[in-house]
Amino acid sequence: MITLEPIAVVRSPWTEKFGIPRQSGLAPEVELTVELGDDVPSEALRGLESVSHVWLVCWFHASVGDGWRPTVRPPRLGGSKRLGVFATRSPHRPNPIALTLARLLAVEPRRLRVSEADLLDGTPVLDIKPYLPWAEARPDARCDWACAPPPTLPLVLTPSAQTQLEATPDPAALATLIDASLRHDPRPASQRHQPEREYGVTLANHNVRFRVTPEAIEVLSITSSTQ
Amino acid sequence: MITLEPIAVVRSPWTEKFGIPRQSGLAPEVELTVELGDDVPSEALRGLESVSHVWLVCWFHASVGDGWRPTVRPPRLGGSKRLGVFATRSPHRPNPIALTLARLLAVEPRRLRVSEADLLDGTPVLDIKPYLPWAEARPDARCDWACAPPPTLPLVLTPSAQTQLEATPDPAALATLIDASLRHDPRPASQRHQPEREYGVTLANHNVRFRVTPEAIEVLSITSSTQ
Repeated sequence: MITLEPIAVVRSPWTEKFGIPRQSGLAPEVELTVELGDDVPSEALRGLESVSHVWLVCWFHASVGDGWRPTVRPPRLGGSKRLGVFATRSPHRPNPIALTLARLLAVEPRRLRVSEADLLDGTPVLDIKPYLPWAEARPDARCDWACAPPPTLPLVLTPSAQTQLEATPDPAALATLIDASLRHDPRPASQRHQPEREYGVTLANHNVRFRVTPEAIEVLSITSSTQ
Repeated sequence: MITLEPIAVVRSPWTEKFGIPRQSGLAPEVELTVELGDDVPSEALRGLESVSHVWLVCWFHASVGDGWRPTVRPPRLGGSKRLGVFATRSPHRPNPIALTLARLLAVEPRRLRVSEADLLDGTPVLDIKPYLPWAEARPDARCDWACAPPPTLPLVLTPSAQTQLEATPDPAALATLIDASLRHDPRPASQRHQPEREYGVTLANHNVRFRVTPEAIEVLSITSSTQ
């Protein structure tokens, strides 16, 4: 048996799993921070600014309790085809280790500012490693399923949702976060034939109600979740 | 505290750390196998053949006992400059997790045949994930140190070493393994000013003695280690 202690924690605008982009790089405009744990000296980050991208090796803490099965149905395959868990990036794994490639925006004394990461707020970080493009960039690698980013849909707001957005403290930032979280269609694959169904997600302390039509993500309302 | 159980083990021709290439992809001609643990069903690998490369998330089992320091001196920087441990790929880390990109040669019922991996025989495997080139191939990523593969030196054998090689059961395979293991100069950076010094490494049950001149890796003798 191997035991680990987290070395850092992720601070992210995503406070629930629903709505988090399902891979690195899909939400480049969303910033997260990685805060070093108290036991880790600041010098452990020295020189990290010499790379543009880092690996965040994390723990899928919100999926651990769900357990795992030998095969899973990836959303990218429509939720019907089963693949072995090791052929997928499902968080429900024997050892639920997350591997995320993040763009490094800044190295600050005891934290990193990053983007492009697909991580839940509070995610424990097990390791940080520099990305080595000469060893790890293989653009010619073959991937016969999920071989391209998932498609996106345009985001439209109902007039009332637009009015609600404009009354928030930072409408532009919230609009960006909503777009980054919803444009890849966050619904479970099993529900993609129910265009009338409404969904809710909490983003930056706001409840966002939406539905997905064949043409767009339609935001129905934006209300504060802290009232 | 997080606890993990290995899901597989690596079988590799490298039975000691000295001589293992120091990154993925440097020894493409060397084959390793990943053998699933008894508790893991074979179906967990189903569909993995649809990708050409896999991530092996492993445990640096032979480095755990050495502990870690906040800064390290990477061999690639000549062993003099100190970088934070998270700015390097040193195996001496708070959580000694190894991340290796391997080429997938074949998916067999309870094992994978791979190449390009830089792993010690007996390495515990914590996770296997498909490589997603659209998310993880960033050829334009910046890396201001170690931004290219390490240089190689040609391998030369003394006449007596050549005779010893030809008397082994599979001279071509052993010569390939010796070349892959030594051509990047496996010496500790601190010893690179001592061209007269001789080294020994065990490869495929043979003791290989060599030294490194400014022009070449010179193999001095090849003798069976099992006699």
